[in-house]
Amino acid sequence: MANQPLHITLFGGGNVATHLAKNLLTLPDVRLQQIYNRHLDAIKAFEQNTEIIDDLSKLKPADMFILALKDDAIVPFSKKLQAFDTLTVHTSGSVAMTDLQTRRKGVLYPFQTFSKDKPDIDFSNIPILIEAENDTDLILLENLGKLLSDNVQIVDSEQRKALHIAGVFAANFVNYMYRQAAELLQDHQLSFDLVKPLIMETAQKVQTLSPAEAQTGPASRGDFKTIRKHLDFLKIGSKSELYQYLSELILKEIGNKK
Amino acid sequence: MANQPLHITLFGGGNVATHLAKNLLTLPDVRLQQIYNRHLDAIKAFEQNTEIIDDLSKLKPADMFILALKDDAIVPFSKKLQAFDTLTVHTSGSVAMTDLQTRRKGVLYPFQTFSKDKPDIDFSNIPILIEAENDTDLILLENLGKLLSDNVQIVDSEQRKALHIAGVFAANFVNYMYRQAAELLQDHQLSFDLVKPLIMETAQKVQTLSPAEAQTGPASRGDFKTIRKHLDFLKIGSKSELYQYLSELILKEIGNKK
Repeated sequence: MANQPLHITLFGGGNVATHLAKNLLTLPDVRLQQIYNRHLDAIKAFEQNTEIIDDLSKLKPADMFILALKDDAIVPFSKKLQAFDTLTVHTSGSVAMTDLQTRRKGVLYPFQTFSKDKPDIDFSNIPILIEAENDTDLILLENLGKLLSDNVQIVDSEQRKALHIAGVFAANFVNYMYRQAAELLQDHQLSFDLVKPLIMETAQKVQTLSPAEAQTGPASRGDFKTIRKHLDFLKIGSKSELYQYLSELILKEIGNKK
Repeated sequence: MANQPLHITLFGGGNVATHLAKNLLTLPDVRLQQIYNRHLDAIKAFEQNTEIIDDLSKLKPADMFILALKDDAIVPFSKKLQAFDTLTVHTSGSVAMTDLQTRRKGVLYPFQTFSKDKPDIDFSNIPILIEAENDTDLILLENLGKLLSDNVQIVDSEQRKALHIAGVFAANFVNYMYRQAAELLQDHQLSFDLVKPLIMETAQKVQTLSPAEAQTGPASRGDFKTIRKHLDFLKIGSKSELYQYLSELILKEIGNKK
């Protein structure tokens, strides 16, 4: 990387933008020179550290524009940047790179769940998936990616979409399962705390084992008696239907292996 | 607790029995005097530390018999112990205490997932759920539970069953979601490693937030456009059906809140 710091302008005021801004500000080889947002109050926290703007006519020349915007906003917003020759990247898992309406296009997708409630997220362990239309831009993006994270990988838009969907299963749907557990415990005057160590251990397990190896439970051992007992206990309702649906899928899977 | 150590005999050679034996052997106030198993080879690892037996006629008097057996084996095996006046407990989440055929009955249910691949499991953070027919036995069980874990709770058989089912959702079904993610990544030449930080973060989140608060994803924000894109990407098949089924459940939930 050159001695000159990388000049970056960030667009957005949501979770990803906020966490990205915090991390970019810690990097000595990066100069986060401006943050743009339609409403200045969402980015007011950064006014000590960088210039905050709500007017595109104030944009300064930069090496990279990062659009950390909602999926729906990316394409229309990118149209406003058509006049610039700056490499413009979005941070979304599900928008194709080629949808960007700028001259130079790329993607910098940090693959993690971001919530407002967690004030500090260290990017160094978060996989960053990058994509660009040409090698020069890809190198620029890779340089930035490596400053942020130890895990930078080049993936195309198709792979990025697969990863995004994998994330829906591994995070959103997983959380929905946690929720079923929480409701069930509450219905029986039991604390959700009881299930927390199990949740951590289940996540830990697949850090070293494959999920196929780690699968346990009544359905995975073909224990119809326990499945029946559980369904009787749950009675008729959405939890019982969900239990049955997932158990049948798991049973089918072990059937296929035999 | 009296100065006299608690004399315990353990029955079983599976995961729960093995991890329980290892932990019991570390307790100064407990004497694990015998381990019984039908096949001695499964418990051979303990022969330096305790007496291992495969013959019930060799049983010595004890304060407690712990049946760490498979669900199906508990009731028939307990019949063989009808002659004893020893408090006999099982370690199962789904067998009712009253199903035991012994004179004195109880349950000591460590609520965690145990796998052979993990050699050492520290019980101190694992919730232990206990139940007994009378107060004397409950105190005996509580004393043992507290030696093993910082988290001992008295729950009845109905609550224990609810907890067990909650565990199926929070561990077994969760792991099945991990599996969907793993398959999807493999289909697109991507490593499962990419999703591991997200899995940990998702589990971490509900250690402090409720799952309802922690819910994110296309369905939870009513983002039909992304759901449609993902379903198109998954094409027809079990993953697409599962994605749609769970998304509809989550959509219904946010609909109910409005």
